Amino acid sequence: MTREPGGIPIAESIRAIILDKANTAMDPRTEALLYAAARRQHLAEKVLPGLERGAVVLCDRFVDSSLAYQGYARGLGIDAVWDINRFAVAGTMPNLTLYMDINPEIGLRRIQAANEREINRLDLESITFHRLVREGYKLVPQRFPGRIVEIDADSDEDTVLRQAIQETSSAIKGFSHLNVK
Amino acid sequence: MTREPGGIPIAESIRAIILDKANTAMDPRTEALLYAAARRQHLAEKVLPGLERGAVVLCDRFVDSSLAYQGYARGLGIDAVWDINRFAVAGTMPNLTLYMDINPEIGLRRIQAANEREINRLDLESITFHRLVREGYKLVPQRFPGRIVEIDADSDEDTVLRQAIQETSSAIKGFSHLNVK
Repeated sequence: MTREPGGIPIAESIRAIILDKANTAMDPRTEALLYAAARRQHLAEKVLPGLERGAVVLCDRFVDSSLAYQGYARGLGIDAVWDINRFAVAGTMPNLTLYMDINPEIGLRRIQAANEREINRLDLESITFHRLVREGYKLVPQRFPGRIVEIDADSDEDTVLRQAIQETSSAIKGFSHLNVK
Repeated sequence: MTREPGGIPIAESIRAIILDKANTAMDPRTEALLYAAARRQHLAEKVLPGLERGAVVLCDRFVDSSLAYQGYARGLGIDAVWDINRFAVAGTMPNLTLYMDINPEIGLRRIQAANEREINRLDLESITFHRLVREGYKLVPQRFPGRIVEIDADSDEDTVLRQAIQETSSAIKGFSHLNVK
């Protein structure tokens, strides 16, 4: 199990620049390139070594977040942002992606209530921006038919978790090249 | 007059990650994406405002360096690295580029002698790497016919400078949209 930037020092340093609330002058293209850079380093140092030893790698966030945030909500274009991420991942894409669909108001309330992390530069965007991000996420599966399964994350934690386990288990059974029962 | 990262705080922070000698685990694709990100920010905050007020902008290093270093010498491919840089520059390219061609041994000796800056992570690469970079630079003009003028930088400073001024002056005269005599 991992999540970007996954404790990889180079990726953490990149992420710190992106999320620094002082960096209000950051251009949307810079932001998209930095996310792709952090993603690449996390992939190279953590995901690829896992795959090479035959592990099932579960990763929190990947390319789709950039397509929704920078491609759609920032208006750079899903295709343009996919191009730089295609360079970053160089052929490694998930077999299955679970998209947790949630009303942005509920999502932001949960972040605040959980109090597990600081509110960052992107959390501070307007609710209009977060609604655009959700619209973006809804468009991404058209580019990648079959890879993305939507889960209704407005439900309670147990229901969401049960559905996530079910989707993951049934998908893994279908990966005949993996030694998983 | 400017040079990447040009004192732009976001670009300087990105550059610091690239050139940090401790970052030996940096993947070549991460490096290429970080250079493109720093370039974008410098372009957005410094070059574009200059062009918008009608200035002639002289910039030390631009896309071609990434094509030679990451595209050719690191083996990522000139076309692949051009793709992510095309995203970064979003249509803004130089009217004229002066490529100072120099024997890498002489170049590295001059950096050491000048003592103007620290030896960074890229300077520490082998002489074989620096020879590859030069080969890369020689290939770049094939992609951009007419934009790049080669200057023999093995010569002394005065000769190089005189040639650079001459090429720049005659090019500027040809830019009918600029008010320069």
